[in-house]
Amino acid sequence: MAKTLAVSPLAPKGGFPDLPEVGGVRFATVAAGVRYAGRTDVMLAELAPGTVIAGTFTRSKTRSAPVLDCEAKLGGASDDGAAILVNSGNSNAFTGIRGVEAVRAITRKVAGTLGIPEARIYTSSTGVIGEPLPHDRVTAVIDELQASLQPVGIADAARAIMTTDTYPKGAVRTVEVGGKTVTVAGIAKGSGMIAPDMGTMLVYIFTDAQIGFDDLQPLVKGACDGTFNCITVDSDTSTSDTLLVAATGASGVDVTADTAFSTALTEVMDDLAKQVVRDGEGATKFVTVAVTGAASDADARAVARSIANSPLVKTAVAGEDPNWGRVVMAVGKAGAEADRDRLSIRFGDVLVAEKGMVAEGYVEADAAAHMKGEEVTISVDLGLGTGKSTVFTCDLTAQYIAINADYRS
Amino acid sequence: MAKTLAVSPLAPKGGFPDLPEVGGVRFATVAAGVRYAGRTDVMLAELAPGTVIAGTFTRSKTRSAPVLDCEAKLGGASDDGAAILVNSGNSNAFTGIRGVEAVRAITRKVAGTLGIPEARIYTSSTGVIGEPLPHDRVTAVIDELQASLQPVGIADAARAIMTTDTYPKGAVRTVEVGGKTVTVAGIAKGSGMIAPDMGTMLVYIFTDAQIGFDDLQPLVKGACDGTFNCITVDSDTSTSDTLLVAATGASGVDVTADTAFSTALTEVMDDLAKQVVRDGEGATKFVTVAVTGAASDADARAVARSIANSPLVKTAVAGEDPNWGRVVMAVGKAGAEADRDRLSIRFGDVLVAEKGMVAEGYVEADAAAHMKGEEVTISVDLGLGTGKSTVFTCDLTAQYIAINADYRS
Repeated sequence: MAKTLAVSPLAPKGGFPDLPEVGGVRFATVAAGVRYAGRTDVMLAELAPGTVIAGTFTRSKTRSAPVLDCEAKLGGASDDGAAILVNSGNSNAFTGIRGVEAVRAITRKVAGTLGIPEARIYTSSTGVIGEPLPHDRVTAVIDELQASLQPVGIADAARAIMTTDTYPKGAVRTVEVGGKTVTVAGIAKGSGMIAPDMGTMLVYIFTDAQIGFDDLQPLVKGACDGTFNCITVDSDTSTSDTLLVAATGASGVDVTADTAFSTALTEVMDDLAKQVVRDGEGATKFVTVAVTGAASDADARAVARSIANSPLVKTAVAGEDPNWGRVVMAVGKAGAEADRDRLSIRFGDVLVAEKGMVAEGYVEADAAAHMKGEEVTISVDLGLGTGKSTVFTCDLTAQYIAINADYRS
Repeated sequence: MAKTLAVSPLAPKGGFPDLPEVGGVRFATVAAGVRYAGRTDVMLAELAPGTVIAGTFTRSKTRSAPVLDCEAKLGGASDDGAAILVNSGNSNAFTGIRGVEAVRAITRKVAGTLGIPEARIYTSSTGVIGEPLPHDRVTAVIDELQASLQPVGIADAARAIMTTDTYPKGAVRTVEVGGKTVTVAGIAKGSGMIAPDMGTMLVYIFTDAQIGFDDLQPLVKGACDGTFNCITVDSDTSTSDTLLVAATGASGVDVTADTAFSTALTEVMDDLAKQVVRDGEGATKFVTVAVTGAASDADARAVARSIANSPLVKTAVAGEDPNWGRVVMAVGKAGAEADRDRLSIRFGDVLVAEKGMVAEGYVEADAAAHMKGEEVTISVDLGLGTGKSTVFTCDLTAQYIAINADYRS
């Protein structure tokens, strides 16, 4: 845990983006010593009265206490404000009744300090699974957090929620609606279950747009399907995955049914999702798996996931080996409709295989050249229908083992 | 490919077992130079007239040409003999029409040389996927193979079918039926997709028992479900998995509905299946995942597989870390019915977690001591019903990456 990981070679070249203030949102962070020393580990986002909060969560059957509490609280505007509090270092997952009590203690303290009903306080926890959350360390810093709330500070918030992420993740889009500007800014942490004993991907998106819960929630779910649900690092699903979108309405711009807004929201989610993959444990290659020609979109997704999760495909990418035989294998095991003799495979633009065998005139050196790049694209056309899906992943390297086989300490 | 791997530390301590002759079976092996130099790579098993051949195959949608050919030929006794020919070094998978022609060329040559109809010649190929099989190198050695057939030689056959297996795999059981002895002897190769570019688990079992195809085939399928279908190394399903059981009838003992025979057959399959896991790529620990208390056996199997395939659980085992949080995670993502607050988890005999949290009085040193052994048992009781399933796997180490990220050469 004390180990410092080198920044992923796939980290965005420009560093953390310049995120503007979002009307109706104030941030604060503090070092509470939940588990880590010498760094911030609690962030508080205070949201203006009228804020609508939508979200999606892990579908795990062993979901953490904060996830269950958050999901029950999703909802529309209220004359009361709202708040999101996140701690890193401990996920408060599989902590039984003590976990529920910890959530209650924290939300009660935040509610009392900010003068907001408990039902509008959302919390997340990320870190080790199964150890009781020392919630007194969190409640002890709420007054300090409240005193330091300020509209800038989203970058600090992105840092406070990191576990063993190698860089903070942020993204922003602005859209013009009726001559006014609406901002959508978000932060994320994690990479599947990237870190030793950790289990969370957390995403928080803030916008000053005005939109009702019943309009925002389906928008968020829909956008999630094409972004966060399309990434995988190691096929292991966290107990704590949480995505919250808070719309403060501070811009005074109603974006209901506005496609520019939904596009901006989707782009922010897409940007953050890809940043999570780029921080995949031990990753050295960003891999796009594009499947077309499937009998259905669901079939395409199953095949894309099978390829993206295959340890043999991922190790081949790590070895810069255009090993299309392993892609064939992963198509075959996916369970989706497939016909060996109709599928075609490309690495980058290089047609590798078609009609059930290696492509006529295929020169391995061409595909090998593509594999040497930092961005690898594997395209599979199943030749059956119009179903398609694209999934993003990274390669599997010895560094993944080094990170995850370390004894907790 | 030229690389020599050290023998797995989990290899059976006694080495290759002493396999007796099986009435009605003769073996031969030869170095045909399909891909490897300096070792045998083709084995021929000749089976007496009256032999019944049952089998099971990969459910992959991208199955190899020999698999498709074999499956179509499964069947009952005939006045004609039968033969099984296996080459290593090339899997003849995803080789299109040329693959079908290669199977045809080999089966025709074997049939002509042994005087057996083509419909009774079974072939398997294991090795690199997607490269045309140089079948002329195989047909060129059939006469030599035929000339050297002998009842002993099953151990040599086990070696000839290896790809990058680190040891040959064999098992035997004998049963007394009506005062007579029936022998069941088998060989296997592989470990899921253990080797660079390879894709096969092959299993051949020979018995002198007398039994009809309609009785043997369901026996084989049933036993497979509790043995080979219960192992996983890396979750990657081969294009070429093949299990053939040949019953020559040479003992003159009818074993139809004889439970001692079906037990012996199951034990041989169980033994070989575990030997395959013990040769898992980079394996240092043999892991038993036992799930009980599930709503159904299918649910138990789903949970057991989810745990056994989780890279985070497998790296934790490699690190000798009793990381039960990752087991909780794998239960949660399995998709089976589960209740966080009812499940209990044991490492060996040590109760680690129950009632949704760490067990009262749990001492991590006790669980850590179990993890240091070569055999690790993870037991999960879901507390819901009577469904149960046990799956066998190995840990995930840096050696897996080293083996599989190497460029084919």
